[in-house]
Amino acid sequence: MKSLKEKIVQEGKVLSDTVLKVDTFLNHQIDPLLMKEIGEEFANRFSDQVITKVLTIESSGIAPATMLGLVIGAPVVFARKKKSLTLANNVYSSKVFSFTKNETNEISVSRDFLSPDDNVLIIDDFLANGEAVKGLLDIAEQAGANVIGVGIVIEKGFQQGGQNLRKQGIRVESLANIKTLANGQVEFFD
Amino acid sequence: MKSLKEKIVQEGKVLSDTVLKVDTFLNHQIDPLLMKEIGEEFANRFSDQVITKVLTIESSGIAPATMLGLVIGAPVVFARKKKSLTLANNVYSSKVFSFTKNETNEISVSRDFLSPDDNVLIIDDFLANGEAVKGLLDIAEQAGANVIGVGIVIEKGFQQGGQNLRKQGIRVESLANIKTLANGQVEFFD
Repeated sequence: MKSLKEKIVQEGKVLSDTVLKVDTFLNHQIDPLLMKEIGEEFANRFSDQVITKVLTIESSGIAPATMLGLVIGAPVVFARKKKSLTLANNVYSSKVFSFTKNETNEISVSRDFLSPDDNVLIIDDFLANGEAVKGLLDIAEQAGANVIGVGIVIEKGFQQGGQNLRKQGIRVESLANIKTLANGQVEFFD
Repeated sequence: MKSLKEKIVQEGKVLSDTVLKVDTFLNHQIDPLLMKEIGEEFANRFSDQVITKVLTIESSGIAPATMLGLVIGAPVVFARKKKSLTLANNVYSSKVFSFTKNETNEISVSRDFLSPDDNVLIIDDFLANGEAVKGLLDIAEQAGANVIGVGIVIEKGFQQGGQNLRKQGIRVESLANIKTLANGQVEFFD
């Protein structure tokens, strides 16, 4: 996705060979117009599929997932990283380790919002080691839902998450796939 | 806002005299079309003002704030409830107590995304005791930004947050203002 790649090159900060900071438009400050374009691009990539539910994880997945939901007219569910008092125990849950934050979170989704009738598209901002997506797949499986694929805004293609998912036969569409962050430069695949 | 109030009556669950659960469209599952309408309604209510930045807090503020940002063409910044490793120390921060979750979070916003040149509209999903909004106001003040007002999706008008803010001369626009949740029923002001 050209406009996204340009934005990454213009505004992304390469903090190390593995860390790209895109806080100006995705992870802290959000560019709503770019999010709308991202939602439209995901809808195009998966236009051969009927999506009944968009599944993401708080917080940075919410904006792109909601824009996709707007384009295709489907509800969005975001997994929570902590159980809130009002969620109670009626949940599917899974454990997710975050390398960025160096902590394990239990993520959970209410049983009310995923069912065996659902065709789920999983959306997330980043795909690196694939831990968050694995947790969301686990939750969808517990619900008996059909996962039609995974849509990622920025894949760190030099890490193993995307490769492992594709090896399992899971369809992964990344709007920008980074080959390397070496020497402080962003280089994309293609 | 008529469509929002109807949705609250149809899908909201009154769990006690103070707790309203709206997980089907706002706090866990998100209705993107309703979020778009909410964004448009906020834009209308504050159409007499130039907004340079929408300020909200993760996670449930992100969807309505991003839709407002889309309508008015302004960037959205969401305060984080935990410092991430990549945010480092270049932040404004404030302490916020959550009565729902019974915990205190330090919220923070990067100094890169708020400045004295900004006209800020604060957006949040709920206003009850006003703790989250107070934290966001504190952060905007630290940045020297001008706060033009506060937009709330659902105000619990029977609690003191909104009243206290208005007494301080802060403009608060709530799209649905709840008078009481007594007897398991939602009753609105107006």
